[in-house]
Amino acid sequence: MNKNNYCVIMAGGIGSRFWPMSRNAKPKQFIDILGSGQTLIQQTYNRFTDICPEENIFVVTSDSYVELVSKQLPKLKPNQILAEPQRRNTAPCIAYAAFKIASINPDANLIVAPSDHVITQERVFHDVILKGLKFTAEQNRLLTIGIQPSRPDTGYGYIQFMPEENSQANPILKVKTFTEKPNLEMAKSFLKSGDFLWNAGIFVWNAKSILNAIKEFQPDIYSLFDEGQQKYNTPEEDAFIQRIYALCTNISIDYGVMEKAKNVYTLSTDFGWSDLGTWKSLYEHLPHDAHENAILGDQVMIENTNNCIIHISKDKLALIQGMENFIIVDTENVLLICRKDDEQQVRNMVNEVKIKKGEKYT
Amino acid sequence: MNKNNYCVIMAGGIGSRFWPMSRNAKPKQFIDILGSGQTLIQQTYNRFTDICPEENIFVVTSDSYVELVSKQLPKLKPNQILAEPQRRNTAPCIAYAAFKIASINPDANLIVAPSDHVITQERVFHDVILKGLKFTAEQNRLLTIGIQPSRPDTGYGYIQFMPEENSQANPILKVKTFTEKPNLEMAKSFLKSGDFLWNAGIFVWNAKSILNAIKEFQPDIYSLFDEGQQKYNTPEEDAFIQRIYALCTNISIDYGVMEKAKNVYTLSTDFGWSDLGTWKSLYEHLPHDAHENAILGDQVMIENTNNCIIHISKDKLALIQGMENFIIVDTENVLLICRKDDEQQVRNMVNEVKIKKGEKYT
Repeated sequence: MNKNNYCVIMAGGIGSRFWPMSRNAKPKQFIDILGSGQTLIQQTYNRFTDICPEENIFVVTSDSYVELVSKQLPKLKPNQILAEPQRRNTAPCIAYAAFKIASINPDANLIVAPSDHVITQERVFHDVILKGLKFTAEQNRLLTIGIQPSRPDTGYGYIQFMPEENSQANPILKVKTFTEKPNLEMAKSFLKSGDFLWNAGIFVWNAKSILNAIKEFQPDIYSLFDEGQQKYNTPEEDAFIQRIYALCTNISIDYGVMEKAKNVYTLSTDFGWSDLGTWKSLYEHLPHDAHENAILGDQVMIENTNNCIIHISKDKLALIQGMENFIIVDTENVLLICRKDDEQQVRNMVNEVKIKKGEKYT
Repeated sequence: MNKNNYCVIMAGGIGSRFWPMSRNAKPKQFIDILGSGQTLIQQTYNRFTDICPEENIFVVTSDSYVELVSKQLPKLKPNQILAEPQRRNTAPCIAYAAFKIASINPDANLIVAPSDHVITQERVFHDVILKGLKFTAEQNRLLTIGIQPSRPDTGYGYIQFMPEENSQANPILKVKTFTEKPNLEMAKSFLKSGDFLWNAGIFVWNAKSILNAIKEFQPDIYSLFDEGQQKYNTPEEDAFIQRIYALCTNISIDYGVMEKAKNVYTLSTDFGWSDLGTWKSLYEHLPHDAHENAILGDQVMIENTNNCIIHISKDKLALIQGMENFIIVDTENVLLICRKDDEQQVRNMVNEVKIKKGEKYT
């Protein structure tokens, strides 16, 4: 295994889409949302153990989730868990990790990946990532993984590549533009053109390249972290991060760096990826019974019930009759019952909960 | 208040219709199923406090509910709670109460009433019961309260009275026959004939009259309880009942005595009565919101939800969206979601629960 390969898992999200399954105190990445026996962050970690040495895997998370991370990934040493004192989106998170890892190994070649996505074809993923690492190891290139789109999904960002370069022999393509979540019409035209990929938010680059790009396009963030050169991986690191983190611009790496840089490439692939950003996408990734229900729970009895997502705590008995196309989630102190097709209405109710009911239920 | 007036509240039922709201460990009569601030047995007790002296109110219940009764009705002295060691239907229960009360006061005039019915017009009830007590005080007559039927309900038993005697001036009529739950066609013809009343299972008689009738029509039960003449209201009563109760025939007072006796009358009335025997009848007695939902629970948020019964534990937050005509009951370890119109299908599922899941959930 190449000792220069490093992995950064971003695990600071609060997963509010899957409330009440996902809670502030234990968001989506820390739960076994697929009922596979592993939480999403455990699946993510395991995907990298034959790409990087274990000591080269780092997790960036909110300081309130450090304990959860260390419990779910017991092989991580304290120095491998980076605690963010505030949520500042992905640019500061990636800058912090890149500075810290570069101070251990200036030749580090990084994969940066979210902790809460699902990837069904792990062997394809493995090969793609190794190909990406090879592409960035010695060169000043920023690589983002692009997923061949199978439908005009309006929930994803899109990457447009330079069309002349598209060929089976060369899946690594120069990026032309990034596009935020499009409307349906636009998404359909993207698919038709054949020049667009889904932006998976998985990046590959060497530490020098990303630090150069941050220095060029987010100089304020760069200089804040640059001040700490002597402090990374020392007992002073924590206090330093505590001091500077709140001062960082709140900006994503896509918007703050990738859309501006000229050396950006995408590796076009398909490894059964989903960001599990909607109940519908979660439903698609869960195993279904004969009535197309996705059921998590030990004691769920159904009758005349079809196309539902049902998530019931262990030990709780549920009798569900006459339901069609519903989401049913029961946790210790919250019950959610809503139509699968009315996600937006549900999101509004959840926002109302946050405002009116407070921390206990969120 | 007439010191010969006594009341016997029957509270041995297990209320399985309203599972999981009603549980073996705490059946329907012991819960505030209407959200009124009082349990059904408390409402029943309070209905009698201006008819009988408090010391003349007795409760017959399963020995496993004695503690619940005494907690919910703290004015009852231990001697006023009759514990049944086994379930033996209403004839043994009524025989026990009649023997015990007759040994305190041979001139006792009794009302016998279930603990889990709802009566909305309490002043009418009060007048009707006093009229009934007057009718039975000095005479060998058995009186059963008949409710003027408002619809061809197939869930109730019916009383046919002698038609020639029906008049506004005389609401107490001689009974011709009792009929068990009829089919819909029969129920419709009952209503059309005008000679039928609903059998409310509320009885009025003096102790001597009912004991005579039990002696005549259920001599085995009579002789078992008659053996204990010297033991009622003494420290020996409990052991005596423990010994004989299992030997009693399992039979209802309607089938075992009332259908056979010749001195049976019915008092035709209407005081807003329901036996709360179905979810539908419970729904009708609960207050409704603007969308015709009957909601019990402190933290229930609904959206686009109509005609539902929703019962959620205190402190639990429920978000319910897109539901129409459903029963939703959430308790600590059971969740039930089912269509209001499919009670039978639900009952089958509940039976399956009882067989497969055992005590914990029933």
